Amino acid sequence: MFRRVRLDLAYDGTDFAGWQVQPDRPTVQGTLQEALARLHGGERVAVRGAGRTDAGVHAHGQVADALVAESFPAEALRRALDALVPPPIALLAAREVEPGFDARRSALRKTYRYLVDRRAVPDPFRGRFVHRAPFPADLAAIDDALRRLPGRRDWSGFTAASCAIEDRVRTLEEARRVEIAPDVDAYLFTADGFLTHMVRNLVGTLLEIGRGRFEPRRVDAILDGADRTLAGPTAPPHGLALLSVAYTEADGGASGPGGAADPLW
Amino acid sequence: MFRRVRLDLAYDGTDFAGWQVQPDRPTVQGTLQEALARLHGGERVAVRGAGRTDAGVHAHGQVADALVAESFPAEALRRALDALVPPPIALLAAREVEPGFDARRSALRKTYRYLVDRRAVPDPFRGRFVHRAPFPADLAAIDDALRRLPGRRDWSGFTAASCAIEDRVRTLEEARRVEIAPDVDAYLFTADGFLTHMVRNLVGTLLEIGRGRFEPRRVDAILDGADRTLAGPTAPPHGLALLSVAYTEADGGASGPGGAADPLW
Repeated sequence: MFRRVRLDLAYDGTDFAGWQVQPDRPTVQGTLQEALARLHGGERVAVRGAGRTDAGVHAHGQVADALVAESFPAEALRRALDALVPPPIALLAAREVEPGFDARRSALRKTYRYLVDRRAVPDPFRGRFVHRAPFPADLAAIDDALRRLPGRRDWSGFTAASCAIEDRVRTLEEARRVEIAPDVDAYLFTADGFLTHMVRNLVGTLLEIGRGRFEPRRVDAILDGADRTLAGPTAPPHGLALLSVAYTEADGGASGPGGAADPLW
Repeated sequence: MFRRVRLDLAYDGTDFAGWQVQPDRPTVQGTLQEALARLHGGERVAVRGAGRTDAGVHAHGQVADALVAESFPAEALRRALDALVPPPIALLAAREVEPGFDARRSALRKTYRYLVDRRAVPDPFRGRFVHRAPFPADLAAIDDALRRLPGRRDWSGFTAASCAIEDRVRTLEEARRVEIAPDVDAYLFTADGFLTHMVRNLVGTLLEIGRGRFEPRRVDAILDGADRTLAGPTAPPHGLALLSVAYTEADGGASGPGGAADPLW
């Protein structure tokens, strides 16, 4: 009578208090659960997400799953949900998956993108999605630091003190910078999992390195000492987006535009 | 003691009641005039604009002029104004011009761009700047109609009834469609002047032609008969942007990204 459905979403996170449902605050998970409840006669429908994006963080390829009544073919469900949620959320795709599919646990890896706009003149059309840092940047030093990051490591030094997760070992498969427009950088991070504020702390530290306040090798000290106090400030949320989540072909393959291969602009 | 300064601006028009100042409503002209007054000890400073964009219409290359106290070098003025106006407005450039410069009267031509998104799945990151029309479109018919438009003509058939201007003869130099992304069209119109709702009425008519409701030659009948009732509906404002205004080199040359040569995405 119910089937598990995978939902691929994009959202402008500006006006949401993040992914995770909270009482009396607009969240992406809460908005989806309300829309699904409306399609199920008011019955609560739980939605699980691949990544718990913070308040103000965007997504081009968030993935969620839910148990949905059989009466909704996947494409009809996508259209109905898309019509019920507000315009900052877009339902990109819906597909039936194995009953055991879990958007978070089934994910092979995720790619986050952080946009930094170094241009002197602001861009009112992209301002919601880029962190402005109109300063000279030592890009060679930043790239040096980026090369030091990938690997299977304890990421405590780049994790928020508030993070409740004990095991902070994750494998960062890729960390790179792509200049996607003149003086606009996309920082791309692919890992099998991310910890609270991990990408924003990495970017905050890289920007300090770019301004010459830290040496590139500072990242080794932060990682080796697992010492958050050595890292730079947490970069603001609005530059960050969950770009893609990878799954096996049986689970529907990767979400999002083209993953790390297509950083978008 | 005062000098005339040309200001080049970009804005996200979503939250403005258009360019032209109105009592108790947020307008771009009003916002600029308030910012300039703050820099002049509260003295009123009049701002003239090249194009009176409607409520919800954007600009990548609006041009304005004002008489400004000599104590502000142009770049200092640009920075000060940019800091005083809200983020949806960006001051791209400021330069001193001849005393006789008038942003509207000195303009040689303007280019407007209208974005139509034909994709089935919505895009939450561009939704403020594109008109969604997720329907099959007869692009050959649209392009046929576009080729019929350029020339020196009376544009009454594509002008809002509310337009107070009597002389409706303008020279449309260029009207073309560029597919700037898969299933996303930019419609570009360059003319020595535009009338109220002219671009939006042209696009509304072209979209009706694309859906097979009108023949391409309908535009000839609308133009020849100067008959607004034959044209399509007025396309919504949020797809429209003033892309560029051209001036002589002595007046600082063209504003905006690259005019009709660079429709942006």
